[in-house]
Amino acid sequence: MSNVLAVDVGGTSSRAVILDRTGRCLAYGRGLAGNPISAGPEQAAAAISAAARAAVAAMPASSGPGSAAGTTVIALAGGRTHASTDWIATELTAIGVAGPVTVESDLLAMFCSSGSELDGYAVVAGTGAGAVRVERGGVVGTADGLGWLLGDDGSGFWIGQRVVREALLALDHRAPPTALADLLLVELGIPYTTEMANDGRRASLVDAVGMLYRMRPVQLAQFAPLAFAAAATGDAAAARILRDAERAIVHTLAAVMTKAVRGPIVLGGGVLARMPELPRRIEAAFATAEDVVDLRRVDDGAVGAAVLALRAASVAVSPATFVRIVETLAPLRDAETA
Amino acid sequence: MSNVLAVDVGGTSSRAVILDRTGRCLAYGRGLAGNPISAGPEQAAAAISAAARAAVAAMPASSGPGSAAGTTVIALAGGRTHASTDWIATELTAIGVAGPVTVESDLLAMFCSSGSELDGYAVVAGTGAGAVRVERGGVVGTADGLGWLLGDDGSGFWIGQRVVREALLALDHRAPPTALADLLLVELGIPYTTEMANDGRRASLVDAVGMLYRMRPVQLAQFAPLAFAAAATGDAAAARILRDAERAIVHTLAAVMTKAVRGPIVLGGGVLARMPELPRRIEAAFATAEDVVDLRRVDDGAVGAAVLALRAASVAVSPATFVRIVETLAPLRDAETA
Repeated sequence: MSNVLAVDVGGTSSRAVILDRTGRCLAYGRGLAGNPISAGPEQAAAAISAAARAAVAAMPASSGPGSAAGTTVIALAGGRTHASTDWIATELTAIGVAGPVTVESDLLAMFCSSGSELDGYAVVAGTGAGAVRVERGGVVGTADGLGWLLGDDGSGFWIGQRVVREALLALDHRAPPTALADLLLVELGIPYTTEMANDGRRASLVDAVGMLYRMRPVQLAQFAPLAFAAAATGDAAAARILRDAERAIVHTLAAVMTKAVRGPIVLGGGVLARMPELPRRIEAAFATAEDVVDLRRVDDGAVGAAVLALRAASVAVSPATFVRIVETLAPLRDAETA
Repeated sequence: MSNVLAVDVGGTSSRAVILDRTGRCLAYGRGLAGNPISAGPEQAAAAISAAARAAVAAMPASSGPGSAAGTTVIALAGGRTHASTDWIATELTAIGVAGPVTVESDLLAMFCSSGSELDGYAVVAGTGAGAVRVERGGVVGTADGLGWLLGDDGSGFWIGQRVVREALLALDHRAPPTALADLLLVELGIPYTTEMANDGRRASLVDAVGMLYRMRPVQLAQFAPLAFAAAATGDAAAARILRDAERAIVHTLAAVMTKAVRGPIVLGGGVLARMPELPRRIEAAFATAEDVVDLRRVDDGAVGAAVLALRAASVAVSPATFVRIVETLAPLRDAETA
C-alpha cells in the first residue's frame, strides 16, 4: 500500500508531508508561498514542487525504492475551483510522485488540522482572509478569500494597506498625527524632516510614495505589524484599523454560519493569531444559551492536508489516526526548522 | 521670438498645444494617457512625445522653418517633484522642439485653465484625485494625488474598486443584494446563474473574480460609471459609495484651504463632473458671511498648460491674452476631434 503526499500552500510558505496509510508521517519539506489567485499559477506550481521535492529528499532510506507517494492532495486557496491539475501533475511525476492529484481548499485543510471532526467552521486571516463551513468532511459554504484587490477583508494586506494609507493621510495633513506615520518612515528608512518638496508637499511623503510604488502591491501586507505595534502604544488610528479588521473577520464567519451545523470553529493565520479580542468577539456573536462555541486555533494546514490525503486514498481518519499524524509530524517539523 | 509648447498629460489622454507669444494657438495634438506615478515614466514619455509630435505635424506651413517651439511646459501628476527632465528632453529634440523644459503640476494647469488669476484652488477627480492651493501663480499646497494604491480618494479608481467590492460582497452573501452586482456581471459578460461552483460559491462570483484578476488593477476605474448608473435607480450601496467619494473630495480640498487665500475654486476631472451635489457641498463647507465661493469648472488642463508655457517664456498672461488662448484653441480642438 503506497504512501500519500499532502501539500499545504500558504501565503507565506508551503509545506509538504509524506505519510503512510496508518497516519505515520515519514518526511517533511518546505517551499515558498504560492497563492494562485493573486500570484498566478506558475508561482503556486513552483512553491508546491519545491516543498514536495524537499519532502521526497527527506524520505528515510529504509522506505525502499518505488514511488514516494501514490495519492496527492494539495491544499490551496480557491480549492476545488481548480478543476484541472495538469499544471502540477508533470512537476510531481518528475520527482517520483505518481497517482491521482486532488486540490482542496486551504481553509478545509486548516479545519482538518484541528481534529478528526467532519462538521464545523474555519476562519483564517493571514496574508489573505476567508471562512468556510464544513459538512461531512467537505466545504459546502465559502465566504471571502477573494484576494488582495477584491476582498480578503481583515487580512494582512487589508491591514497593511490601511496602515500605509493612514500614515500618508497624516503626512499629507489630511488626518491628525499617528504613530503609524513615524513607524512607516522608520520601516522604509526615510528620515523624517519638516522640509518641503516642491508643490508644498512634505519631502518625506514624496519619498515614501516613490518607494511604495516601486514595491509589488501585495507587499503592503508587510506593514500590517505596524498596526499591532502602534495600537499597543494607544494609537487611535491603529486601534481603529484593527477593530475594523476584527469586525470584518467576524462578518465573514457569520456569512457561512448556520444553526443546523455545529462543530468546532477553527481559527488560523498569522494575523488572526495576533488579535487577542477576536475569540471573545466570536463567542459574543455566535454562542447561544444551549451551545457554547468550541474555538480552536491552528498554526497552518499541514496536518489537515495530511488528513485530506489519507481520505483521498480511502483511509478513514479516526481520532487515533489524527493523533498519530500530529505526533509524528511534530518532530519532523522541529528537525526541519532546527 | 519663438513659439512655446504646452503638454497637458491626463489620466485618459494627453494634449499638446503650440502657441505664439501673443497667446495665439497655432497647432494642437493628442496622445494617450500617461501618469508617471502609477504607470511609470516610460508611458508618460511616450504619451507626451506622441501628443507633441501630433501638434508639430499640425503646424501650418506658413509658420516657416526652424524650431517648432523654444520653451516647453509639461503639466503632469507629481509636477515639480520631477526634478530632472532628461527623460523627455531627447524625445522633444527629436521632433524639432528645442529650449528649456519645465514640468508643472497637472492640477496647476487645471487651475490656470479657468482664468488669468494668480491665487486660488483647484480640486480634481478623474482617474486620480487631488487638490492644490495656488499663490502668486505657483502651487504652495497639495493634498492627495497619491495614486490608486495609496490615495486618490474619491477618484475613478477609488469608486470603481468600491463598486466591484460591493458587487462581490453581495454575490458572496456578505451584503444585501445591490444593482451593482447585476451591472458588474453584465459589464463582464458573465451570465447570472444560481449555479454553485465547488466549495459552495456561486459560479458567477468565481468567474468574475477570475476575470478581474486578469486585468491590471488600475483598470478597475472602468467600473466607476456603474455607481452613477445604479445610484440613479436608487441603489443604496451605489449612493453610499458616491456620497463617500464626495466627502473624500471635500476633505481633500479642505486640507489646502486657508482663509488668507481667496480666488476661484476650480473643479476638474470626469468623475467630479458627474457629481451634481458636489458644488453645493463645497459651498456649504467653504462659503462665509463675507465671501461667496467662486466655483468654476474646466474640462482639462490644456489651456492652463498654455498659460504656464507663456509664463515660462517670461510672457505675462493678461485677461486678454487668456481669452485669446481660449478662443484660438477651441477651433483647433474641434477640428482635431471632427
